[in-house]
Amino acid sequence: MENHPENNPEYSGLAVNAGVAQPPVVNPYLKPRRRVPLPSASELVDGILKGDVTRLARAVTLVESVAPDHQALAREVIEKCLPHSGKSRRIGITGVPGAGKSTSIDVFGLHVLRNGGKLAVLAIDPSSERSKGSILGDKTRMEKLSQHPSAFIRPSPSAGSLGGVARKTRETIILCEAAGYDNIFVETVGVGQSETAVHSMVDFFLLIQLAGTGDELQGIKRGIMEMADGIVINKADGDNIDRARLAQAQFRSALHLFPTPPSGWTPEVLTYSGYFELGIAEVWDMIDRYFDFVRENGYFERRRHEQARYWMYETIDAELRRRFYDDPDRAARIADAERLVLSNRLSPFAAAHNLLDY
Amino acid sequence: MENHPENNPEYSGLAVNAGVAQPPVVNPYLKPRRRVPLPSASELVDGILKGDVTRLARAVTLVESVAPDHQALAREVIEKCLPHSGKSRRIGITGVPGAGKSTSIDVFGLHVLRNGGKLAVLAIDPSSERSKGSILGDKTRMEKLSQHPSAFIRPSPSAGSLGGVARKTRETIILCEAAGYDNIFVETVGVGQSETAVHSMVDFFLLIQLAGTGDELQGIKRGIMEMADGIVINKADGDNIDRARLAQAQFRSALHLFPTPPSGWTPEVLTYSGYFELGIAEVWDMIDRYFDFVRENGYFERRRHEQARYWMYETIDAELRRRFYDDPDRAARIADAERLVLSNRLSPFAAAHNLLDY
Repeated sequence: MENHPENNPEYSGLAVNAGVAQPPVVNPYLKPRRRVPLPSASELVDGILKGDVTRLARAVTLVESVAPDHQALAREVIEKCLPHSGKSRRIGITGVPGAGKSTSIDVFGLHVLRNGGKLAVLAIDPSSERSKGSILGDKTRMEKLSQHPSAFIRPSPSAGSLGGVARKTRETIILCEAAGYDNIFVETVGVGQSETAVHSMVDFFLLIQLAGTGDELQGIKRGIMEMADGIVINKADGDNIDRARLAQAQFRSALHLFPTPPSGWTPEVLTYSGYFELGIAEVWDMIDRYFDFVRENGYFERRRHEQARYWMYETIDAELRRRFYDDPDRAARIADAERLVLSNRLSPFAAAHNLLDY
Repeated sequence: MENHPENNPEYSGLAVNAGVAQPPVVNPYLKPRRRVPLPSASELVDGILKGDVTRLARAVTLVESVAPDHQALAREVIEKCLPHSGKSRRIGITGVPGAGKSTSIDVFGLHVLRNGGKLAVLAIDPSSERSKGSILGDKTRMEKLSQHPSAFIRPSPSAGSLGGVARKTRETIILCEAAGYDNIFVETVGVGQSETAVHSMVDFFLLIQLAGTGDELQGIKRGIMEMADGIVINKADGDNIDRARLAQAQFRSALHLFPTPPSGWTPEVLTYSGYFELGIAEVWDMIDRYFDFVRENGYFERRRHEQARYWMYETIDAELRRRFYDDPDRAARIADAERLVLSNRLSPFAAAHNLLDY
């Protein structure tokens, strides 16, 4: 589906291909050298509900696997964990490369854990491949957090598509919540539309920005600013403090141009320093106030319901598209249709209906 | 498809339901009292190519009609006009209610016509119903333009959905271009996602804004600012000049926060007064420079191709959704699935697959 607008950032909106019904591929890296029998669903679920990190990790690995027997087991575990899920704050974190996301997540995470509870840190990276993104690599990025006993950190799952990655991350959230993780960070990594996917599975969306040099701010991706419930300007330290405050003023001014979001919450812009651990408490105070606000006015519940509904319909729509476009007999006709449309010999609508009615 | 995310502005992105394959409904208002035979396609096409406004108007009425024989004739006319289409500047115009859009279109239109050529003014209003939106009403809104011999003004088509309205407008563009209209305005009217539909069928997207009172700007819809190739602040006259210039500075500052759009063109912010006809030439100079710029760097051609491709795929996707969701046997199962998902008894993904595999 190369030319499908889904893959065109300008037009694809929220076209996230859920990428379900993957072909049965057995990945040699996942095949155990000795045939260890799979645990039972009950065993995994019992362990998860008790907060057993080993069983949680095992279950997450099954969710990420493409092997059909792993997937079947994973589905059973997810459905059994579902009634025990939902009781966490899901916080999405995005930021331009170089904004200091990893350092910030490290510092934010430790701050949150000081109040007790448990924290899971997940990631969505559509470019993630099985051979890349070692768990060790991620853990050295968030050095202190990775050593904290109440923190559970996973790299992005790999999948054939952004939709597949998003789905597996959402399912992992369910497992983590069932295991008692009451704060969940979902980080976006890399380019593409991972921000939109993350936004559709979290309660609060945090945008980490940097001050620019002079009056030029580092450009942010189209549409991201409007998704943010909070914008935090990093590296507000030393010589950079004035630039950070200027950036804060500019973002506040820009946000002023937009209407109040559906949440009723006015997004705030704060400065902080991840490296020197300044302003961290204020950032979390903002997030606490947000959750109080949206629980009070009912938006929290409404948003969770909208998201669940969205994922159901998006999964259906993506599968309908997959069934249509992945039909090999159709591919040649689609290419012909495109050619006729681009050369103005057939209107897009006539071309569409020829393909649909064949 | 009430609960479909397509109808949720927060999540539906560019979900425009092309609304094709409408049931054969014969509207009594369209049925002629005496049976006048339909013209032939050749007769209409010949007239259109000669610039005959009466035949053009007749053809547009056929495009807008839901009667099956009208639709069949319209399709034939469109396909015959297609090779003669494409040679215009398609300019989308949007603005908040009260921004003075009609007065501005009147003034902009007359300015454009001073250089010769012909101008068509179309509209997309998803709430348009057959009984509303009298042609007379629209013509009194654009008083001078409606009397100009080289101007062709149509109100929004009515249709079952935004997608239907959008499709008919795109087809009307084809007819107008074949009739020699070298400038085409497409205006957005009303609420909803008409801006996105208009953006996907024009070359240049103009946003008309107002200055607020004090430092509070009139809020603009989420995502619209980033679609704009030019932002023009109206009512820069008399006492309001300072506020207009302040608004101009604020919008310029906000635009600075975004990366350069795919066109490579840096969107500009100008002030003008539609009522007093000030700054009009500067606005059109900006638009002329835009067209020179994007023809030069190839983006004009690329965008037209992307849009044609988008409409083909969007039409297919919308019809796939319609076939699935409008199936009456399925409606009850969808409602049940939603209930289970919202009460956390079934994951959205399991629910989706139950519905797909039934």
